[in-house]
Amino acid sequence: MPAAWLISRLCESTVTLMSKRHIYLEDLPLDEARAKLRAALRTAGRLGPLPGETIALADALGRVTAEPVRAKLSSPHYHCAAMDGYAVAAADTRDARETQALSLRLGRRAHPVNTGDPLPDNTDAVIMIENVDETEDGCILIYAAVAPWQHVRLMGEDMVTTETVLQVNHQLRPVDLGALAGCGHATVLVRRKPRVAIIPTGGELVPPGRRPERGQLIEYNSLILRAQIREAGGEASASEIVDDTIDALSAALGATLNSAPDLVLMLSGSSAGSHDFTAGALEALGELLVHGIAVRPGHPVIIGMIGTTPIIGVPGYPVSAALTGELLIAPLIRRWLGLSRDEPVTVEAISTRKIVSPLGDDDFLRVALAEIDGQLLATPLQRGAGVITSLVQADGLAHIPRFHEGVDRGDAMRVSLYRSLSQVKSAIMVMGSHDPMLDLLATHLRLFSPARRMISVNVGSLGGLIALRRGEAHLAGSHLFDPATATYNLPFIRKYLRGEPCQLVTFAQREQGLILPPGNPRGISEIADIRGLRYVNRQRGAGTRVLFDHLLEQHDIASAEIRGYEHEEYTHLGVAAAVSDGIGDCGMGLRSAAEAMGLDFIGMTWERFDLVIPARSLETESLQALLTVLRGADFKRELGAQSGYRSDETGKTVEPVDA
Amino acid sequence: MPAAWLISRLCESTVTLMSKRHIYLEDLPLDEARAKLRAALRTAGRLGPLPGETIALADALGRVTAEPVRAKLSSPHYHCAAMDGYAVAAADTRDARETQALSLRLGRRAHPVNTGDPLPDNTDAVIMIENVDETEDGCILIYAAVAPWQHVRLMGEDMVTTETVLQVNHQLRPVDLGALAGCGHATVLVRRKPRVAIIPTGGELVPPGRRPERGQLIEYNSLILRAQIREAGGEASASEIVDDTIDALSAALGATLNSAPDLVLMLSGSSAGSHDFTAGALEALGELLVHGIAVRPGHPVIIGMIGTTPIIGVPGYPVSAALTGELLIAPLIRRWLGLSRDEPVTVEAISTRKIVSPLGDDDFLRVALAEIDGQLLATPLQRGAGVITSLVQADGLAHIPRFHEGVDRGDAMRVSLYRSLSQVKSAIMVMGSHDPMLDLLATHLRLFSPARRMISVNVGSLGGLIALRRGEAHLAGSHLFDPATATYNLPFIRKYLRGEPCQLVTFAQREQGLILPPGNPRGISEIADIRGLRYVNRQRGAGTRVLFDHLLEQHDIASAEIRGYEHEEYTHLGVAAAVSDGIGDCGMGLRSAAEAMGLDFIGMTWERFDLVIPARSLETESLQALLTVLRGADFKRELGAQSGYRSDETGKTVEPVDA
Repeated sequence: MPAAWLISRLCESTVTLMSKRHIYLEDLPLDEARAKLRAALRTAGRLGPLPGETIALADALGRVTAEPVRAKLSSPHYHCAAMDGYAVAAADTRDARETQALSLRLGRRAHPVNTGDPLPDNTDAVIMIENVDETEDGCILIYAAVAPWQHVRLMGEDMVTTETVLQVNHQLRPVDLGALAGCGHATVLVRRKPRVAIIPTGGELVPPGRRPERGQLIEYNSLILRAQIREAGGEASASEIVDDTIDALSAALGATLNSAPDLVLMLSGSSAGSHDFTAGALEALGELLVHGIAVRPGHPVIIGMIGTTPIIGVPGYPVSAALTGELLIAPLIRRWLGLSRDEPVTVEAISTRKIVSPLGDDDFLRVALAEIDGQLLATPLQRGAGVITSLVQADGLAHIPRFHEGVDRGDAMRVSLYRSLSQVKSAIMVMGSHDPMLDLLATHLRLFSPARRMISVNVGSLGGLIALRRGEAHLAGSHLFDPATATYNLPFIRKYLRGEPCQLVTFAQREQGLILPPGNPRGISEIADIRGLRYVNRQRGAGTRVLFDHLLEQHDIASAEIRGYEHEEYTHLGVAAAVSDGIGDCGMGLRSAAEAMGLDFIGMTWERFDLVIPARSLETESLQALLTVLRGADFKRELGAQSGYRSDETGKTVEPVDA
Repeated sequence: MPAAWLISRLCESTVTLMSKRHIYLEDLPLDEARAKLRAALRTAGRLGPLPGETIALADALGRVTAEPVRAKLSSPHYHCAAMDGYAVAAADTRDARETQALSLRLGRRAHPVNTGDPLPDNTDAVIMIENVDETEDGCILIYAAVAPWQHVRLMGEDMVTTETVLQVNHQLRPVDLGALAGCGHATVLVRRKPRVAIIPTGGELVPPGRRPERGQLIEYNSLILRAQIREAGGEASASEIVDDTIDALSAALGATLNSAPDLVLMLSGSSAGSHDFTAGALEALGELLVHGIAVRPGHPVIIGMIGTTPIIGVPGYPVSAALTGELLIAPLIRRWLGLSRDEPVTVEAISTRKIVSPLGDDDFLRVALAEIDGQLLATPLQRGAGVITSLVQADGLAHIPRFHEGVDRGDAMRVSLYRSLSQVKSAIMVMGSHDPMLDLLATHLRLFSPARRMISVNVGSLGGLIALRRGEAHLAGSHLFDPATATYNLPFIRKYLRGEPCQLVTFAQREQGLILPPGNPRGISEIADIRGLRYVNRQRGAGTRVLFDHLLEQHDIASAEIRGYEHEEYTHLGVAAAVSDGIGDCGMGLRSAAEAMGLDFIGMTWERFDLVIPARSLETESLQALLTVLRGADFKRELGAQSGYRSDETGKTVEPVDA
């Protein structure tokens, strides 16, 4: 399609569209959207599997047969010895007995054969070399009669000429390639790989590797989609990022359609403009089938056809884009390959949270899974469509169908697994306060034993103890200071775990203090100096907040005097980021967080960060492996070398707690 | 290592070895063999994961991280609008009410923003475009107060600089690549792929694509192993096939070791000579650690080290070679990548047969699985190490550990799945007589619905009825002629199914007769002519044997008069192959089998081949799909066009049988 023609067609319709800022999306249920796409593809003659291409067997792993494959040769293609030994005529051996050896002359009535050799004429059995004695004068002695066809592989034992060896629409595995070669093939007719052309659009996008300016975003949805398409068996190419002007978009779309792809993906940037273009182009040049699907996350999906080419407009938020790939694009690729939908392994898991879902939407929740006391528990991860790490961390996807309001804590949910069940079950779930060095521990655990994985969910120190009480975590990280007793954690454990036996193992001593902009522009030197400045606080239940409240009390400062006391961040790095970005003038947190962001730091105290381990977890193999790593010299050395950490007490049991 | 030196070292020791024909293998348990290899690798400093190499993210799908990866940038790296709308200061909106709109001047107290735009200075919230009215005079009207940070993606919401985004030893998925790009990476440090060099040896071997002469075998083990290694994450190269002479083998081994591979595989041909070489080379140049492993199939595995390079001698039989790859080589590749063993999904299944296992061996059985009446049943496939199709057809591998004598019929076995459980469960298990056109039906079923699969296990017509009685199959193929009533199948069903309600659906009419060598050299024209000739029979219980016995009776011929009456083949093609190879002078079977092998054929009768479908199967979705395909015009047309088949009654219900 010539770009000039496209531009003129589009300008008429889309300019007006783009100037409107109010776009109303439909909310078509997912199943209906899929059915519309299928119907349009059927009409266009593009629904069925793609035609075949002949390729060498060596290149065919993972490809899909485009026809049933029949044996060109029998295998074996002659009767052959199945053992090393001597070929004989069974009838000649009739008189052999264990007590009365029979002698057969070599070259006449017995012929040495190796496994795989053809049977010499007039022989029909093989005697194993171990059961024979050779004599000096060129004979063998045998001690038992043999049956016809003993230790012989008959012609066609494995495959017979013309027999169907592999079915059509079969994805080729290593042994399949062997079988095809074994019956005389050197090539195989496989489905052509579906070709997908990806057009990322949006003036604010920059490709990976270029440092984005303020207002620019790194375009990585095309990277995710290309990999998803490759995994599903297709091949994808992405154009350069296209500015969201009609001219640029039309030229890119025209060039793309010229290359006759099986599918075009228009990736929106985050701005509304480029999104409108896809809908506009479909309305002007083809058919707009779907504009918005009632799934969460992922709403603004566009589906249409230009001629016989399907076009999918993929939302800009990365989680939406990845789920569009998983739910809509990968199944289409598999359909074109003649494969059925890739049914994920699903498990039933108990939700640890109440989850409210929008009634009209199919809601897809990313969850972390852990097996605790023999029960599989699902903890929902962040639901924002912009949080790609929620998909990275997810062990699975829970689907809350339309017309369901959500699930209660304790309800069972069906979860499609992103990892194998054995990987899920071997994971250690740590909830509570997050310390960046827990990631270091996770690294050491993984190096120690590749099958073990540690998941951290950050819910603050108090949240961790509550999670333990509810049986939602294997252990908790905690650094709760109790001013009354001047001890860490113990009084809180007594209060929150209510006598549940557990062990307290020290993780690290770490330095807490004030995180300040570089150069400390406000000249802060102690806690009293922060009055009147914009403070960045931590969430309720965080050990650092408990510490801050304690320091305020020590200095007779009321929390109402602290501007920003209600500004809650959830991690040390979050506080540091807020200070770095000038949202706040100071915050309390770890020296390591301040230094990681290149900020100033005034140390206030060294505190103890412990791991709280219930007795029931302690006995598991996973926990024992974790403690071995924690107490190992390698980990302690590396931890102690970090600025703001001391590891001399790391791994020490504080005292048995079973109050 | 220079080849000349190798040759001289090897000649001393191996020539003697190769001249001996009696080789005694050890029988080391699998676990001990693995432990010996691990210990040797540890000593050589080659046990741990391989070092890293930096590659572009676009190439990194499926690769494994060689270090934990931290965020280089926060994502988002500035506070940005999460919605299209207007950025405002939350404090400015305090007085807005639904009943009392508040006006904010554009450009001063409200700023239009698109999703992803940075928040303008002095704003801290976004109001969605849908909740605002623009006025003519450049203001917006809002109807509710907003909280600070509403619809704002805070800097670092997804990832904060220095945060660990991915752990070490993590296999990269599409979303991982996105996350890495999103936090500022364009490349990633991944484990180098383990490099495996494969040397296929054996003078009798020819590469795929060349037509083997009598005595030559197609070498395809290297194809299987290369694909297995690629699947596990390594890369493999195979040399040309090497003659099993000391000179040729030494030169190939020397050249291979010079290229510094991580692992060398010496693939035996089927002959003993080349096998000895690997053991000899290890004894002469390095260390022979293992010579024979107590697994079945797979016995003659060799393991050793030359310098710091592990060498594995892989047995020549293809099933042995493939299982060596699965049990020994792929786990080593994964270890080098820092991955844990790939734990297959396992299920419990009931054995439909008694299985005797060698006491001292770990026995690995290939099984076909089917879900019948809610129970998962495992039927063992052919156990020969030369039958690669047993691995192609297998749904899973059952492991009968050492010191177990086997399992009884009805015993539960643990089976590692080769296909997903949903694929296993959707399969239709057909036992009984095999007709090559059942493969055609399977093809049509697969084209009709890619998720459905039909498995045929050939046990003869009577065997099929017995399998139905035992509840081991969904349906059976049967063509049993009853001379007394001159009907097909019904009397046998009454006898063997003992009143179990079932339906009889005709599959095809097909032509049976005598299969003869090309040109009919013996001048046979009717059944009486076969007296004195070598006949190729079918196994007991086969419909064709029942037919043959009937014809003998009609012609007053005693079975004792038939030479070769006891020579049993299990399929029509098997009979045709035996006649083609000159083992017999004639046999009885299908016209289609004779024509497939280019043989002569004398038609004797047209018979009816029916599908016997128990009522319990009939109601399932799978069976309904199968019947739809069977009765479809496409299938009937293609079936009817085959020589020796008529399809006019195909799909007809014979009569309800519930005697």
